[in-house]
Parts: sequence; C-alpha cells; structure tokens
Amino acid sequence: MAAPKNLSFVLESVKKVKFEDRPLPAIKHPHDVMINVKYTGICGSDVHYWDHGVIGPFTLKEPMVLGHESSGIITSVGPAVRSLKPGDRVALEPGIPCRRCDPCKSGTYNLCDDMAFAATPPYDGTLAKYYVLPEDFCYKIPEGMSLQEAALMEPLGVAVHVTRRGGVRAGDQVVVFGAGPVGLLCCAVARAFCASKVIAVDIQQERLEFAKKYAATGTFQPASVSAVENATRLKELHGLGQGADVVLDASGAEASAHTGIHALRRGGTYVQGGMGRAEFSVPMMAVCTGEINVKGSFRYGSGDYKLALELVASGKIRVKELITKIVDFTDAEQAFLEVKAGKGIKTLIAGVED
Amino acid sequence: MAAPKNLSFVLESVKKVKFEDRPLPAIKHPHDVMINVKYTGICGSDVHYWDHGVIGPFTLKEPMVLGHESSGIITSVGPAVRSLKPGDRVALEPGIPCRRCDPCKSGTYNLCDDMAFAATPPYDGTLAKYYVLPEDFCYKIPEGMSLQEAALMEPLGVAVHVTRRGGVRAGDQVVVFGAGPVGLLCCAVARAFCASKVIAVDIQQERLEFAKKYAATGTFQPASVSAVENATRLKELHGLGQGADVVLDASGAEASAHTGIHALRRGGTYVQGGMGRAEFSVPMMAVCTGEINVKGSFRYGSGDYKLALELVASGKIRVKELITKIVDFTDAEQAFLEVKAGKGIKTLIAGVED
Amino acid sequence: MAAPKNLSFVLESVKKVKFEDRPLPAIKHPHDVMINVKYTGICGSDVHYWDHGVIGPFTLKEPMVLGHESSGIITSVGPAVRSLKPGDRVALEPGIPCRRCDPCKSGTYNLCDDMAFAATPPYDGTLAKYYVLPEDFCYKIPEGMSLQEAALMEPLGVAVHVTRRGGVRAGDQVVVFGAGPVGLLCCAVARAFCASKVIAVDIQQERLEFAKKYAATGTFQPASVSAVENATRLKELHGLGQGADVVLDASGAEASAHTGIHALRRGGTYVQGGMGRAEFSVPMMAVCTGEINVKGSFRYGSGDYKLALELVASGKIRVKELITKIVDFTDAEQAFLEVKAGKGIKTLIAGVED
Amino acid sequence: MAAPKNLSFVLESVKKVKFEDRPLPAIKHPHDVMINVKYTGICGSDVHYWDHGVIGPFTLKEPMVLGHESSGIITSVGPAVRSLKPGDRVALEPGIPCRRCDPCKSGTYNLCDDMAFAATPPYDGTLAKYYVLPEDFCYKIPEGMSLQEAALMEPLGVAVHVTRRGGVRAGDQVVVFGAGPVGLLCCAVARAFCASKVIAVDIQQERLEFAKKYAATGTFQPASVSAVENATRLKELHGLGQGADVVLDASGAEASAHTGIHALRRGGTYVQGGMGRAEFSVPMMAVCTGEINVKGSFRYGSGDYKLALELVASGKIRVKELITKIVDFTDAEQAFLEVKAGKGIKTLIAGVED
Repeated sequence: MAAPKNLSFVLESVKKVKFEDRPLPAIKHPHDVMINVKYTGICGSDVHYWDHGVIGPFTLKEPMVLGHESSGIITSVGPAVRSLKPGDRVALEPGIPCRRCDPCKSGTYNLCDDMAFAATPPYDGTLAKYYVLPEDFCYKIPEGMSLQEAALMEPLGVAVHVTRRGGVRAGDQVVVFGAGPVGLLCCAVARAFCASKVIAVDIQQERLEFAKKYAATGTFQPASVSAVENATRLKELHGLGQGADVVLDASGAEASAHTGIHALRRGGTYVQGGMGRAEFSVPMMAVCTGEINVKGSFRYGSGDYKLALELVASGKIRVKELITKIVDFTDAEQAFLEVKAGKGIKTLIAGVED
Repeated sequence: MAAPKNLSFVLESVKKVKFEDRPLPAIKHPHDVMINVKYTGICGSDVHYWDHGVIGPFTLKEPMVLGHESSGIITSVGPAVRSLKPGDRVALEPGIPCRRCDPCKSGTYNLCDDMAFAATPPYDGTLAKYYVLPEDFCYKIPEGMSLQEAALMEPLGVAVHVTRRGGVRAGDQVVVFGAGPVGLLCCAVARAFCASKVIAVDIQQERLEFAKKYAATGTFQPASVSAVENATRLKELHGLGQGADVVLDASGAEASAHTGIHALRRGGTYVQGGMGRAEFSVPMMAVCTGEINVKGSFRYGSGDYKLALELVASGKIRVKELITKIVDFTDAEQAFLEVKAGKGIKTLIAGVED
Repeated sequence: MAAPKNLSFVLESVKKVKFEDRPLPAIKHPHDVMINVKYTGICGSDVHYWDHGVIGPFTLKEPMVLGHESSGIITSVGPAVRSLKPGDRVALEPGIPCRRCDPCKSGTYNLCDDMAFAATPPYDGTLAKYYVLPEDFCYKIPEGMSLQEAALMEPLGVAVHVTRRGGVRAGDQVVVFGAGPVGLLCCAVARAFCASKVIAVDIQQERLEFAKKYAATGTFQPASVSAVENATRLKELHGLGQGADVVLDASGAEASAHTGIHALRRGGTYVQGGMGRAEFSVPMMAVCTGEINVKGSFRYGSGDYKLALELVASGKIRVKELITKIVDFTDAEQAFLEVKAGKGIKTLIAGVED
Repeated sequence: MAAPKNLSFVLESVKKVKFEDRPLPAIKHPHDVMINVKYTGICGSDVHYWDHGVIGPFTLKEPMVLGHESSGIITSVGPAVRSLKPGDRVALEPGIPCRRCDPCKSGTYNLCDDMAFAATPPYDGTLAKYYVLPEDFCYKIPEGMSLQEAALMEPLGVAVHVTRRGGVRAGDQVVVFGAGPVGLLCCAVARAFCASKVIAVDIQQERLEFAKKYAATGTFQPASVSAVENATRLKELHGLGQGADVVLDASGAEASAHTGIHALRRGGTYVQGGMGRAEFSVPMMAVCTGEINVKGSFRYGSGDYKLALELVASGKIRVKELITKIVDFTDAEQAFLEVKAGKGIKTLIAGVED
C-alpha cells in the first residue's frame, strides 16, 4: 500500500470524525508556501463544530479538516517568495483575507467577508500533514522558540487582539473574565502592556490559582449575588477605586458582561472576546450614563501575530506552561474527547509522522 | 406685597409642582455671573422627574427647581470675569463639574462624579428668574441668533455629543433611531458633519415626515418583524450595502439596539444616547464577530456647546422650526402637561416678567 | 498603415517627449480590468519629471509614459471581476500596492514600498489609449458625473487625504497654503467637512480671488514681514483667536511652514502636503512648547477616492469649474508647455480617438 | 534673631542668586495644601534661567525663586481638602492651570495659556522651605518610596509625557536621542511600555554606557557623516529593518531631528521633547513622502504624574540610581555650578532644615 499523501483529521458531520488521506495541496499563487504541519492546538471552536456543526453564521455542510492553531516547517515555496525558504520553522496565521475589500484595505482584514479561515466551514483546517498559506501569513520563529510554543501563537494572537481592542495602556487596571487559555493569555498580554493590576475572574477556584501563578496580579471568584454586588466586592477587594479601566471578556457569559460593566470606571472599555449566546442582556443604562465603550473582538489582524511572537521571543510572556499534553496525530480523536471534558489547559496534536 | 425676588417653578415631590419665590442666588466665586433667564425648553427628563422622581441613580429627596435648557441675559458678573458683561445674551450650559478629578482633567468633564447639574437632584434647575453659573459655562450668542434659538443649544449640545461619540465622518452612512428633538438634531448634526446618508427611524409616520423635511435624507418605519429582517429591509431600501457606518440611538428602546446593531457594517459604531430600561438584551454575538463598537453618550462636554452655536450661527443647522410653542412662565404647569401628552416638538417657557 | 494599437505620450528622457505606439497592455491577474482612457489631467509632478527627470527618490532611467489623473471606460475584464463590466465609466486610482506588507495590511497602503504608481519611474502612466488596473482601483462613477469631472478625482483624492491627515473636524478653523489645484480642493474639502473658517493663503492675488469665489471663506496674501508678523496679521484679520486648529500646506514652501505653524493654536496640526526642497527650516521651539503636530501627507489611501466621488456626486464639492482647458491627445506637448508656464488651473488631455 | 520663616533660593537677575527669607505662603483656596519641601532636583531649565534669564517666551523680570522638581511633607490643608492630611509625603506637580480654558477642559491642561508654573517667570519656584499647591497637584507617595525618589517624579513625568506623545506601543522599536536625565527616563518608560528595542543615542560614550546599564537595549554614537548615513548605520547595527516606529528626542539638537527622522519607518513618529534653537532645519521631504508625524511635547499633563508614580512604585522603573548627589540647601549655589559643569546625572538639594 502507498504511503499516505496528506493524512488529515476530518469532521465528516456533526459528532462524526475520521482520518482521511487527502491529495497534497497545491501552491497556486506565486507567494504561497507549503508547510509540513508539526503541532496543532485544540481550540474550543474545533470542539464546538464537532459537537454542534455550527458557530454563529458558519454551518458545516461538507466534511471539513479540523484544526487552526498550528506550527510547522516550510517544505516548498512559490516562485515569488522571498521571505521564507524550505526548512524554515514557522507559526501559521490560518486565515487568508481577500486583500481587496474596504476592511482589508483599511487595516481590519480580520473583518473581511471573503476570509478563508481554517476549520471554519467551508474551509479545511490544518490538522493535516501539509498545508498551504501565503508567505505573509507564515511567521518565521526565532532560534530559541520551539515548534510547540509556536503553535500557541494562535491563541496568543487572539489575546493580543483582545487586549489591543481594549486599548490597554501602561498603568491601567484590567479585569479579565474567564481563565481558560485565551483569558490566561489576556492576563499575560495586559501585564506585558504594563497594566498596574490584572485581576482574573472565573468560577473555578483551580483556574484562578493557575492564573495567579501564571500572570494575574489578583483573582476574583464571583459569588451568588447581584452583578452590582459582585462588581462592588471586586473593586473593594482589589483597590480599584472608581473602577477598572478595561475589562476583557474571554468567557462569553452574560454574567461577565453585567459584572464587568459595573466594575468599570466611567469612560472605561469592555471587550467582548468570548462567544456565547447570540443575544443577552447588558446594563445599557450604565453604558449610557458612564459612557462605557463596549467593543467586539474577532480573531486577530494587522500586527497581532508579529507582536505575539515578539512577546514570547523576548521572554515577556511564557506560553510553555500552558501546554498540558502533547498527543500523536493518530490519537486526535481521544485528545478532542479529553478537551471536551475540560481536561488540561492546552493540548497539542503532533504532526503526522513521516 | 413686595415684588417677587426669584420666582421659581419647583417640583415639590413626585407629581406635585408649585411656584415659589426664592431668595436671589449669590455670586460666590470670582468667575461667576448672574443671568436673567429668558427662555427654557421643556425636556423629557424634567417630565420624567415630575412623574417618577427618579432617573437612574438620581432621586428627588427635596423640592427642586425644574428646567435646564435655558438662555438669558447677564445681569451682573464676579470680579474676575473678563469674557462677559451685563447685557450680554447667552446660552447656558447647565452643569458645573469639579474641575479637579481625573475625568475633568482628561477632557471628559461630563463624567465628573461631582457634577452639579441643573434639575438633577439635589441641584436646582433654571426655571427661575435668576440663575448663577461660572462664566465659562455661559456662551455669548451672536447678533443674528435669538434667545429662543439659544435655549435650543442644550438639546443641540446633546446631539453634537452623541454624533461626536459616534465618530461620524464625511461620507458616512448614518442611521438615527428616534425622531424626537434629540434624534432630529442628531440627523441635522450628522448632515452638517457631511454624512452621505442620514436615515431617521421611528414608529410614528408623522415624526418621520417631519424628519425628512427637516434633516434626514431618508426614513424608515420598522415593521412587526424580527430585528434582522428590519435591518435587512432598512439596508436594502436605502442602499446601505454592507451596512451603516454609524447608528445613533435617541430612543432608548431595546428594539433600536437590535435593529441598529444588525444594520451596521462590520467595525461600525452604535451610540446609546437615549435612556430607557436599566438593562436590556443586545445581539452580543454580532457585536463580537462584527467588532461593533457600542458606546454610551451622556450629556455634553468639551467643545460641544461651542460647536452647537457655530453650527446654528453659520446656518448649517436650523433650530427655529423645532420650536412649536412658547408659553408664559406662569403657564409652566400646563405646558408640562402638554409635553407629557406628546404635543409638539419643543415647547419653550418664557422667563419671569419684570 | 495599421491603426495604432496603444498610442502613448512618452517622456523619453529629461525635456524630451514623444508619441509612441506601444503594444496593448494585458490582463494578467483575474481581478484586472482594461480601460480605454478618456481624460487625463496634467499634474505638476508630470511637468517636474519632464523638466528634471527626478522627484525625491524617484529617477527617470528608461522612457516612461506620463499621466496619472485619468478617467475612462472599461473595455474588458478579468475572469474574477464582479464589480465592473465593459462600458462602465470609471475614475482611475493609479497606484497598485503589494497588498502583503505591513503598511498595506495596516490601512496605509499609500506607504507601501512596492507601490507601482503611474508615471513614477519606472512605472508607465495613463497617457495612453489603454491602461490596466485591478478592479478595486477603478471607481464606477454615477450617472450625473462626467468623465471630465472623473479625471479630477485624482487631485481631489489628494486633497481628501491631506484634509483627513489634518484631522479636520466640524467647527475647525483651517488655513490652506497654496491656491493651486490641490490647495483649492483642500479648501473645498475642509468646507465640506464643516470647518467654520477656511482661509486660503497665496502670494498671487488672482489665485486668492478664485479661491474666495470657489471655496474659501477668507483669503490672506503674506507681506514681506517676518513669519510671526504674518501669522499675527492672519489671525487678527480673520478672527482666529488663539489660532487655527489645522493648517494644510499645498505649497511646499519654507515660508508656509513658518507662517503656518505660528498661525496655529497650541495643540494644532500642520500638514505638509506640498513638496518642495528636501530640507528646510521649521520653528521647532514653537512645535515643542505648543505641542504642534506636524504631519506628512502622501498621495491617497484607504477610502479617499470613494469619499472624493461621494463629495462630488452629492454636490458638496464642484470640480467642473477647475477645468480651464481640454486639449486633444495629439496636442499633449503644447498643453504641457502651457501648464509649465502657469496657465489655467487644470488642463485635461482628451483620450486617443478611435 | 528670629528663625527664618520661608528661606528661599532666589534668582535675583541673570547670573545672580541669593538666599532670602520670604514670608510664609498662604492657603488661599479651600483646596490648597501647604508643603514643607524636602528634596528638589536641579533641572537644566533652572540653570538656563540663571545663565540667560530667558527660555522661549518666558523672561525673568523680577527676582524669582528657582526649583520645580520637588517632594515634601504636607504641613496644613485648606478646609475643602479630603485627599491629603498633614504628615502625608507627596511628590509635587509644580504647575497650576486655569481649569477654565479650552485646553484645560479638553484634556491638555499643560497647554493652558494661564499656567502658573514654578520657576518659570513670573512664578516662584519650589526651592523654599514651604510651598502651596492645590491638593490635586500633590501625589501621595507609597510607603516603599523615598522622598528623594519622589523628587524624581518631575523629570519622570516629562519622560512619561514624551513617550505617550510618541504613542509608544508594545513591540515598537524606539530610538531616544540624548542620554541626560530625561532621555534616560524616556528609555526606561519605553521599556516599561513593552517596546521591543530601545536604542539610546548620544555623542558621549560614557552616557551611552550608563544608558545601556540603566534601560536601553542598545546604544548608538553618531559619527561625523551625513544624517542619512548615521540613520542607515543605526538601523543596520540594531536590526531595525524598515526603521524605528518612534523616535523620542531629549536633546534639542538639529542633528537629532535629521538622523531621527531618517531612522524612522514610513508612518513613524518623531517627538521633539528637547528644547534647542527656536528654528532649525528638518528633512521635510522625508516627512511628506513618509507621512512622518512630528510632534512637540511640553511638560506633562493628565495622568502623567500618576503613571510616573505607579511605574516606580511597582518596580517597573528605578530612579534611585539616577541620583548622583544630595547637597544641603545652603550649598545650592555650589550645586548649581556643578550641574552647569555637567557633573553627575541628577543632583538633589535637601530642604531647609528646621
């Protein structure tokens, strides 16, 4: 039997996955490069597609390769490529915008309506042996950085984007809701941005303990009281005075929006980074009279990956300690089941072996 | 019987008003000026305090003079005043911030927690013969502007602030929810700011007809369908393409937030200018994936009155046609009842006669 | 003799032009379109290359087709083009960025180092029968706009960009140095952006008279006195109080920078839009103590052409009256000589006849 | 003989100083506090007034107390003071704006034309036993901070302001010209703001060595070549690629502006923080085609002192090592002469002993 060409981990339909040997992808554009994928993190959205087949406006209609948090090694490059060569180790930014629409040309390519994003229907993801991207979406990693760490550049890119959307500045008091991978990384980015306080909020004590050790300057576990009471306690407990300058949500929970907005100073900013229900209640009177800024944050855009890499390369942020398990490609299904069960912080799936 | 010193229109307690002759206010600070109030518009918030005694965190506990949309003539000035002299005709900005806190010193004095705002408990309003303000909150009006028009600078200041919070720029497609006085003025300000389209939305056809004649380039009456359907119809009907750049809400209604947010392009801005229920539902998934900016807008701040005056003085905005009735001071109660019943656009109460 | 394929007006070397029949350009990229060029304005930079063969870092080394202010009619489209079809009338944005570098992806494609800009060495310009551009750099013009007006979208795009770089907001006091085509258009754009005052400054009285009729609210002719004295006179004469909010330079002269910066209020903005000598003196102490913002402005970028079209289509800006002459393609050389001699405001060269 | 009331160090006229026992200052405003000054740093501007009697528009006409970089202990407070009490240790922000003008109300009180700034004619400085300030310009220092360090909050406030004006963001490549106290502190602030590279530039090797140990990631000593050559060498030597994102000038030298602007990437920002000659030459063609932002920075404003304190309190910036000498109040003249001779980095004058 012939060796597999491009073994892939495919979501066939809701709750049904399989391994499939697909044809090698082609370098179609002169600026494309081919990557041998080495590590891929499992993301909540991968798990969600597996379970539900849909997130917001994106619905699974055809079988789709999963995975989008990847690193790898360049195997070949298109004729116009100048920035990379075979053998280069790279972190993958897994979404290709059209480059021609208004959002693309005005600095917000993450809002491109023609974005081809890995493992978002109908686009195949990176859980395959090989993957093709334009050179400018592959980021060469420095010598001291491992390919495992490079796979974490995707969630770190998300956290950089959320924190930038929040406009976190030196000296700011920041509260982060949700202490999963993105929330933890938001804490780390806010610290790197010179926030004076970074308070992690979660309902699980264990996660808060990790957050405190990892990057938060303080933690808060909401009680079964009103959002105003929780916000008041949070502000008092951590000496936030008139309130936080910025709240970053990485939970997607309605309660976070309520407690978070009430915990802000007037003129403060709340960023909705986590995705939850399509609609939920928000304290809009407080938004109005406090001139609160509520901002959505979606994926990552101009400069986010570059900064993510620089933060790790310079030692300002450590991502290694978030990697709780690395499994073989052939164990992908079992790994997904464990992530779904809430085990660990970040599980990586190793690339297909030669 | 002695002539009245400072006849005032006082809200004694919920649903109970009276006329009262109060002592003359004093010029306490060297930069204060005394104003003989000439015209005062009736605002929805005056009516709301009368009816309910409370708005958000502000509760009527003592009798309070109503009114805060006023113009008048300077009668005397403190020893340090240089910019004004007796006889000068002025528009009144009726809120005095502390000038020392962080919001005051960082350009957002409207967010000052120690703001003394006219007719917001416990501070007396301007429906009196005389009123005292610091000179820098009195704006000399140009020759061609009447004192009636000058009383409209207050709601126009609100509209300028809402439109600035929306970041409305030349060429923008703008949708305004609510075609009451502030909504109409938002339409006018957006037009003056060179918006390419300004669509007024209201449930009353009559208001939309006025909006169209006054300042809107188009109008939209929502149907009894979903917010998404209304938003889609609105965009198609007015050729908004990917969506509006900015939505300004002057309605305070939950439905406006839903239709408004769905009517925005990705990256667009929704401003909550109208006050309604303390909490209501918002399409937060759309906010997140579309990186929508939701911003509160509260009163007016740095430069808003100055710009309001300039827009009217230069003829870019007409406010005269919004004045539907002028009543004597002694008829204030009847005028309030008519405003409460929804009659007219803006009713002015003339100052106390000598 | 065969009919000419693609007759072009070529700058062969410094001070030497010729007509040449070149091969038809090809549609190489699926998003390209071919345009039959109908009108091309003569720009100062065309004249400068003719005379000197160099502007800043760009040096003429090979013969180059001149022209970059053009409009035309689509003759054919690439297979992926959806927004345009043969017969569509368009304004041409004559510079193609790489779309992959940091400036391109962060909303400043005009700063792309790999920009291929028409009639900037080594790239051919638009003074030819046919020209090829990507569809997103061709702007369909509305029914009421003529192809002559459409050719003016290029200098208007420059003026829109300069005025945006200046951050001109409603109510601002604006001073524009230089009353040539771009300066005049800057006046018009500032007026459309709702500036309260727009003062045109030039050393030629005749130009100031046109500026006053066209778009300026006032004019100023500098005297042979110091920059500080000129600035003081300018502020007094036009009631600018503490100074202008924004100064836009379309002259490139050292004297403009001095008078302009001294004419600003503290915190004001000066935009260097005109190109003159590589280095010149600036009042940097005033820049420092007044926290003046000095900004360069180069060509046009995201959204500038779109807004230029909307401003003309909506009647907010009139460009027709700037067109002082239209000549046949075969008279291009004579037209250049007249422009060089300072005749007229904007001369258009009609397209090659069939 | 009676004990001295308020011994002060007075600049009587150019090059002539004396000690003088002046009357105790009074608490005139209810929000004023009186401070027993404990430490005062000597600033280049103090030395300059001594030597020349003039800086920019400010000219010494009457004898004036010198000094404005001070810390001290509250001795009494006005009746309205709530934030401070006698015994509190504070850093002094030594300029009181009018709080009523447009700059004051729009977040730029440092641009107030009625600013009363210590040791800027005609306002007396802080080199006295007692000094009076409004409470909101005195910053309570935390337990771990010494009064010597607190005196450094003034130059650190300047550096925070310069760095903020530069818009330094995480990941930025920053170059700082001038390695005196403010330049060194700019390096430290840029590092705290998470700049990826901070290159100190100076003509003195010794200063560069200190900068490297203190806060710079690299250093550069300009050679006697052209500004373009120095800029190219600087970029190559430190791997700045397309150029620095931000250049902060703390030298006031013309050469710094030239080398600095040429060292920037397109779209980069140059901040003129140092004061030198009133006018000097700048590469304006590069400013124009590179859309460089040149910004003045003057003193400090909203939030700068607060952040300066937080940066030191949290250990992100160390100021202690900049203090090279502490002298008795009665040795002030000798200390000034040494500073003038270029000795040390920062000399403090201890307060008048009881």
